[in-house]
Formats: sequence, C-alpha cells, structure tokens
Amino acid sequence: MSKNRIKIVEKILNANDRLAKANRQKFDDAGVYTINLMASPGAGKTSLIIKTIEGLIADGVQIGVIEGDTAPVTIDSDKINAAGMPAVQINTGGECHLDAVMLETAIDQMDLTPLDLVIVENVGNLICPAAFELGTHSKVVVASIPEGDDKPYKYPNIYRGLDVLIINKTDLLPYIDFDMDYFRQGVEMLNPGLTTFTVSCKTGEGLDGWLEWLKARISK
Amino acid sequence: MSKNRIKIVEKILNANDRLAKANRQKFDDAGVYTINLMASPGAGKTSLIIKTIEGLIADGVQIGVIEGDTAPVTIDSDKINAAGMPAVQINTGGECHLDAVMLETAIDQMDLTPLDLVIVENVGNLICPAAFELGTHSKVVVASIPEGDDKPYKYPNIYRGLDVLIINKTDLLPYIDFDMDYFRQGVEMLNPGLTTFTVSCKTGEGLDGWLEWLKARISK
Repeated sequence: MSKNRIKIVEKILNANDRLAKANRQKFDDAGVYTINLMASPGAGKTSLIIKTIEGLIADGVQIGVIEGDTAPVTIDSDKINAAGMPAVQINTGGECHLDAVMLETAIDQMDLTPLDLVIVENVGNLICPAAFELGTHSKVVVASIPEGDDKPYKYPNIYRGLDVLIINKTDLLPYIDFDMDYFRQGVEMLNPGLTTFTVSCKTGEGLDGWLEWLKARISK
Repeated sequence: MSKNRIKIVEKILNANDRLAKANRQKFDDAGVYTINLMASPGAGKTSLIIKTIEGLIADGVQIGVIEGDTAPVTIDSDKINAAGMPAVQINTGGECHLDAVMLETAIDQMDLTPLDLVIVENVGNLICPAAFELGTHSKVVVASIPEGDDKPYKYPNIYRGLDVLIINKTDLLPYIDFDMDYFRQGVEMLNPGLTTFTVSCKTGEGLDGWLEWLKARISK
C-alpha cells in the first residue's frame, strides 16, 4: 500500500509541475511578472504586499494579489482591496499549501491584461509550500525577527529554492535576542549569495531596495 | 485516481488513530502525563518547555521531551539536555507534522519509568499537526503576540481541539499592534471557555498558572 501511495503522490507532483508550466505561460502571455510569497503565519506577508502596493502605486504599477487561506475568511483580501488593488481569494479548505491547480483556478478569475505584477500570498507555513511549484517567476520568503535566528537551520527546504529573502520586523531587534550573523550564515549555507533585504514593514525602513528589485523585473 | 487517494488517506488516518490509542496505553501504564505541544515556527515551544523544566525541577518532577523536527538538527534537543532532562529527537525527513507512528518509535527509545511528564514538541506548523492524534492526554498550543491577533480566524482548526492555550511573548505587547480582545473573541468562538495562560517565557511573567495547571495533572 505504501508503494501505491508513493506512486500516486509522484503522479500528483508531475501533474502539478505540468500545470505550473501552463500557469507560467499564461503570465508570460499577459506580460505579468509573478511572485510566490511564502512565510510562516504572521511573519508579515500581507504587510509586505500592502507596502509594495503603496510603494509602486505612484509609478502606475498595477498589482493583482492572489490570497491563499486555509479558512474562508477575507481578512487579507479586504486589506488588498482597501489598498486599491484587485484580490482573488483561494480557500484551500484546510490544506496547508497552494498548488498549481488552485492557482490555475484563481488566474481564471483574474483579468491579467491591465496588470504588471501578480503576488501570490501562499498559506502561512514554512514547510509544505516549498514542495509545490506554482508557475511564478520567482519565490520570495518573508522571515521575521521574532521567529528567532535558528529558522534556516530548522526549516532548510524553504530557503533552498528561494530567489529573494525579506527579513522583516527589524523594528523589534532592540527587544529580541536575534543574532543576525548566525541567521545569515544559516541562509548562506543553503542558498549562497541569496538576494536579501532587511526591512520593517511597520516603519518602512529598508523597503526601497525591495521596490527597486521589483521595478527592475517589471520593466523587463 | 483521486478516489483511490482518498481511500488510502482514510486508511492511513485510521491506522494513525489505532496507534495513537496504543501510545496512550503505554503512557498510562507508565503513569506519565503527556502533552502534544503545537505552534507555528518560533512561537516559543522550546522556551516554554525549558521554563517548565526550570519551574518544576524543585518539586522533583521528571520530564522527558520528544522533539519533532523536519531537519536533522539537534538545536532543541541540546537545549533540553542542557536543562538536565532527557530528549529523544524525531526527524520527520521534511514531513510537516508528527504522527502516531513517529511517536511510537520515539516512545520505544525513551525509558518512561522514572518520568512524570512527557512533552512532545510537534513540528512548527499551525495547520497539519492539528489533523494527527498522537495519543497524548492533552493538546497545548503556544500562540505568539508578534504573529498577530488574527490567527484564530485564519487558522481555526488548530484552536478547535485544544485543551490549553498559552499566549506567549507578552513582553513585546508595548511594541506591537495586538488587540487582545479581538484575538480572544476569535478563540472563544472556536473553543468556548478554553483554559488560557498569558505569559512571557522571556521574563517569566504569568508562568505560575501554567505550572499549577500541570502540577494538578501530574499528581492525579
């Protein structure tokens, strides 16, 4: 039975990768740059999206957001709409990650034509989302100072396939024992030379670098 | 294929529940009280365990710890050993939760005879661990102030089957927008009258209530 299970899981993963490629094609056809944004619960994914919208709105950048949630609540989607951008919500029905099928459904509900950038906010989870390609152009993880400096050592998989790391909540550094060198060494070991931005979505500190990185991708 | 997959998953869940019962029997036979400790990454599970060991050691309470990790690192087990108590590590090999089979393996490596309390530190994840019974006497979740006050609304499943909630990192309340009433309303909706302790594992504030709750269970 265990062998059957492995075979079935492999088939599902293959199907997922095929659908991820189809998703990517849709994004490319529409000329939209896309990000798979991952983090543990409460690290600041939605805050980063809001700050990104606020930071790029003056340049006329149009941003769509796809919100992955395990529960049927619209807390994050409401925040995106309040910031003036369209959001499509995926309720995973208790599932711990987004996959390419769920994203396909969301894309079909979103008019990509006017958009320059689509941010997919994955379910808050440092483990499972790392295993499922969605078809986005890049993968970004938000790490959070209060989560502690040992996270790259304990949750290595999510740091491995990553394109950009955002270290958030630097405003809390004075109140927390967090060894930045130890944290960065852990990341470097898993993903040498990873593009990293150290920010506070609360104070806005350090967000310029992230916005510049994004603008360079959007204008391509 | 999808139907087969569901059947197989159901069989696995049934097998898990049977094994959880067997685990519980082993704990009961040894006269050990056991806890399944769950939280998202960095909420303070290990810190709570260390504070619990420090708080009960003077009463002669013997505590064993089973550490669930997705990666083969001994960071948490080393901390438990340094606090003077035995730890057995389960490396889930990338899996996002503990199950009853993994716990069975760990129990067999642990001498339960001298122990009064076994704390099972689950993998850092607010979603998947909620679906797998381990056979412990109670389930405890550590929530963390910096994770934000909307977590019960977004991750309801883990709050539903819970026996005790620990709200940790109250020392950070002055620096974070966290509406305690909103958070507690969300919990109350899912799990009315849930036993809750508001603590700081950093300053030690509020831990007395938790230790008293535990002592009452151990003496039973």
